[in-house]
Amino acid sequence: MADIPERELRTMNHLMYMEYYTGGNAGIFMKMKRLLHSYQSPYQRIDIFEHPDFGMVFSLDGITMMTEVDEFMYHEMLVHVPLFMHPDPKKVLIIGGGDGGSLREVLRHPSVEEAILCEIDPYVIDAARKYLPTSVKFDDPRAKIVNENGAEYIKQFNDYFDAIIIDSTDPTAGEGGHLFTKEFYQNCYKALREDGVFSAETEDPFYDKGWVAIAYNRISSVFPITKLYMGFMTTYPSGMWSYTYASKKYHPVDDYDPERAKPFEGELKYYNPEVHRASFALPNFVKEIIGEK
Amino acid sequence: MADIPERELRTMNHLMYMEYYTGGNAGIFMKMKRLLHSYQSPYQRIDIFEHPDFGMVFSLDGITMMTEVDEFMYHEMLVHVPLFMHPDPKKVLIIGGGDGGSLREVLRHPSVEEAILCEIDPYVIDAARKYLPTSVKFDDPRAKIVNENGAEYIKQFNDYFDAIIIDSTDPTAGEGGHLFTKEFYQNCYKALREDGVFSAETEDPFYDKGWVAIAYNRISSVFPITKLYMGFMTTYPSGMWSYTYASKKYHPVDDYDPERAKPFEGELKYYNPEVHRASFALPNFVKEIIGEK
Repeated sequence: MADIPERELRTMNHLMYMEYYTGGNAGIFMKMKRLLHSYQSPYQRIDIFEHPDFGMVFSLDGITMMTEVDEFMYHEMLVHVPLFMHPDPKKVLIIGGGDGGSLREVLRHPSVEEAILCEIDPYVIDAARKYLPTSVKFDDPRAKIVNENGAEYIKQFNDYFDAIIIDSTDPTAGEGGHLFTKEFYQNCYKALREDGVFSAETEDPFYDKGWVAIAYNRISSVFPITKLYMGFMTTYPSGMWSYTYASKKYHPVDDYDPERAKPFEGELKYYNPEVHRASFALPNFVKEIIGEK
Repeated sequence: MADIPERELRTMNHLMYMEYYTGGNAGIFMKMKRLLHSYQSPYQRIDIFEHPDFGMVFSLDGITMMTEVDEFMYHEMLVHVPLFMHPDPKKVLIIGGGDGGSLREVLRHPSVEEAILCEIDPYVIDAARKYLPTSVKFDDPRAKIVNENGAEYIKQFNDYFDAIIIDSTDPTAGEGGHLFTKEFYQNCYKALREDGVFSAETEDPFYDKGWVAIAYNRISSVFPITKLYMGFMTTYPSGMWSYTYASKKYHPVDDYDPERAKPFEGELKYYNPEVHRASFALPNFVKEIIGEK
């Protein structure tokens, strides 16, 4: 410690990031190395920190959206579970996901010809470009970045997308609430082709079980096939994250073809065919939350 | 807030529990309602808190061992995965587990005739009896509580147990290190009958991947069948917990008979046959940690 100037030590002492989870009585703390960027956009406060172990940490309104070391867990599960269910996904829409992690995963699929990233807040895109390695695919010729409210933007599409991925912030933060309504899910249904696939992040069943139930039930009231699935996400509340898969046609376990993931062996850090199937096995208390017994 | 006396408010303001995870740059915080018990035993500091949402919180040397609301996730996965692999578990040894949660789960199995709980620290047993609902089975006629060092205690047994369950604290805390040595695992092997089953908590692959690898590799150097499995554990570091199953005879997926869990439907909050199988599906980065590709 002797080599660190007194002035810098004092700065470090004060950069304790504390995210209070729902209920306000517990949360995660991270001792940040420094704050690189903080901006109040028309939609939310955008912060980017550097953490000694986690690399870049990106938060919106004080809620951790990603850290560089574990974002792969979330993005791979959100994207590859639906995309490997489709035999030939060409047109994909991501709503939210301004850090670019979902876009990066979508573009791993060589069949994809058009990947639209609809992120409401252009300032998130700017910050990601400048600080987040996840933004690596923003300029890919197959990618198109649109800064619009996803809940409005989707209305213009009919029978168009092969996959829609909802990579939203929390329903209670920023503009996230628009992406948890039944009307929005109906518009997703309409925008999907007859064999389209859908996934959404649907919060954690420990601190936010109410939202898990609401999101799952609304999605399942729209789609004939709806299944909750889960994965580890180490810096999100409780480390136990839920996603909801939906489709008009493909059952995510019965219709799954593990051969499709073969060419990706060695490339992905979380997803594999066993994990795909396993993620749909729900602990009893989670089944209870979504009314499945 | 106006109704809370100033004096009490000040007390609450100061009861912020912060557990620093390995590396020291992140962790969990809990705003505790009150500290009920704090005792420095010859082995470790034993603390019991009350939390407004989590109920009783039990920690050893500042490391959270359990909270009342989510301990079922850990105890069910540690105990039922091995016990349902055995056709008729009669004699079971639990090493560690002084809170009683593992003992409670073991005694759910009607075949069990003798369940020895070998907890080194009698003060943990005392505190659990007084404050923790998990101690509910301490006085069960089939249970026997022994306060000895598990690594020594096990040496007297040969070909005796049907199941051994290692419910230790962290390898770096208290007396936990004794329960992570190759010699200890060899003695477990010796103490098990030819169709015996074994499980151990083996830390988390995010903050403590070194220990996951060490424990798994040492166990697999002793047992012919060794498999890492995983489960959510929401108030443990990263929420992603690893366990290691081992046996001389039964493969935990190929030899699994889901019928055995049928009578437990409705009783367990986490474990079910789908979760049993799913827990052995490892994300790629975890396979890499244990050298499995």
